[in-house]
Amino acid sequence: MTKLNIKIYRNLMGANDRWAARTRALLKKHRVIMLNLIGSPGAGKTSLLEKTVRSLSKTCRFAVLEGDVETTHDAERLARLGCRVSQLLTGGACHLEAKLVHYALRDLPLNKLDLVVVENVGNLVCPAEFDIGEHAKVAILSVTEGEDKPVKYPTLFREAKAVALTKMDLLPHLPFDLKVCRAYLRQINATTPVFQVSAQTGRGMAAWIKWLREMHAESQTPDARHRTPER
Amino acid sequence: MTKLNIKIYRNLMGANDRWAARTRALLKKHRVIMLNLIGSPGAGKTSLLEKTVRSLSKTCRFAVLEGDVETTHDAERLARLGCRVSQLLTGGACHLEAKLVHYALRDLPLNKLDLVVVENVGNLVCPAEFDIGEHAKVAILSVTEGEDKPVKYPTLFREAKAVALTKMDLLPHLPFDLKVCRAYLRQINATTPVFQVSAQTGRGMAAWIKWLREMHAESQTPDARHRTPER
Repeated sequence: MTKLNIKIYRNLMGANDRWAARTRALLKKHRVIMLNLIGSPGAGKTSLLEKTVRSLSKTCRFAVLEGDVETTHDAERLARLGCRVSQLLTGGACHLEAKLVHYALRDLPLNKLDLVVVENVGNLVCPAEFDIGEHAKVAILSVTEGEDKPVKYPTLFREAKAVALTKMDLLPHLPFDLKVCRAYLRQINATTPVFQVSAQTGRGMAAWIKWLREMHAESQTPDARHRTPER
Repeated sequence: MTKLNIKIYRNLMGANDRWAARTRALLKKHRVIMLNLIGSPGAGKTSLLEKTVRSLSKTCRFAVLEGDVETTHDAERLARLGCRVSQLLTGGACHLEAKLVHYALRDLPLNKLDLVVVENVGNLVCPAEFDIGEHAKVAILSVTEGEDKPVKYPTLFREAKAVALTKMDLLPHLPFDLKVCRAYLRQINATTPVFQVSAQTGRGMAAWIKWLREMHAESQTPDARHRTPER
C-alpha cells in the first residue's frame, strides 16, 4: 500500500486523557489511591485537608498536590502541619491538566504512599471536565453557597464519588435548607455519599475519615481491581 | 499581483473581541451602561441584584442578563421582583462569550434602558478573561471565601472597576480579617473602590447604589466619552 501523508491533529482533550491513563497505570502499580477535590474558591477545601492531615497522618501515608492559579498559600498551610505537599501552579488556567499532575506525581515516592489528594483549582465548572487519572472526584460544597449548586453545576455533582458539605457550623446563621440542597443533589446523583462537616468544630469529620480509610484499605487488597471512571 | 490563496485561522479570542466591540458601539449609541458582575458560585451575586432591583427600580430603567451553566433559577428570582431579565445559558461553558451577550442585548429595548447588569457564570477564573463589551467588571467576593482570593485569582481583581464584599452580616461568625483581605486586594489593585455589603441586612447598600447612580448619570452626559477597558 502507498503510504499516505496525512497530518493528524488530535484534540487537546485526547492528549489529556492519555496522560490520565498513564497516571492511572502508575497509581495501580504502586497501589496508591488518588482523589481529586473540586469546589468553588473558598469552599473550604484546604481547611478540610488541614483537618484531615491532623486526623489521618499517623495511620495513612499521604501526600497532597495543591492546584492554584497563583500563590503557594495553600501548600504552605499544609506544609506547616508536616504534610508532604507539592504546589501545582496553572499560571492563569482554570483547572489542572493531567500532564501537570502526572509530572508532579512521578516526583513523589509512590512506593511509600497510600493516598494522594489533589486539591484542584477553585472552580465548580472546568476541573470537572478534565480527567486527571484519579480514582474519585470529590465535590466540596460549602453551605454558604446556597442550596441549588448541584443543579446549576451538574457535571461535577454527577461525577462525584462523594460530596463534602462544608462549613456546617455556619448553618444557624444562614437561610440554607439542608433538605432542599440534598433533594437537588439527588436529582443529579442518586447514590453518592454526603459528608456534612465543619473544619472549625470537627463535626462530621469521623465519617469522612472513615470513608478515606476505606478507600485506602481497598488499595491494599492484592486483588483490588483498579476502578475506572464510569462515563 | 497574483491573488494568493491562503487560509486564515483567527483565534477564538479575536472573534470574541470583535463581538465585544459591536456591543460597545451599540451601548454607546443608546447611552446605556453595562456592568459585568463576576464572582464564585454562591458569592451572593443574585442576592445583591435582588436588593439592587428593590432600591433602584423606580429611578433607573434597567435590565439583567443572567448567565448560568444550567437552570433558570436566578432569572426567576429577579423576574419575581418585576425586573426585566433574560437568561443566558452556556450549556456547560464556564463563562459568557461576547456573541451570546450581544444577541441578548439586541433583543432588549435599549432606547428605554439606562443600565444593563450582566451576571456572569459563577467562576472567579474564566469570565475575567473574556471581554463582553462591558463598561466595568465588578468583582463580587463573599467574606465566607477567605481573605486571600484577590492574590489567588488576580486577573479579575486587577481588572475590576469596583469590588463588592458581600455577606458582611456573617463576619462575626468567621475567622476572616477585613484588613488582611483589603491589604491583599491593594497588592493587586491600588485604587478600585470596595463596597462592604449585606443583602440580608441592607448594610452598605447605600454606597453601592450611589456608585451605580453615578455610572448611570455618566451615561446621560451628552459628551461622556465611552470608556474603553485599560489593558
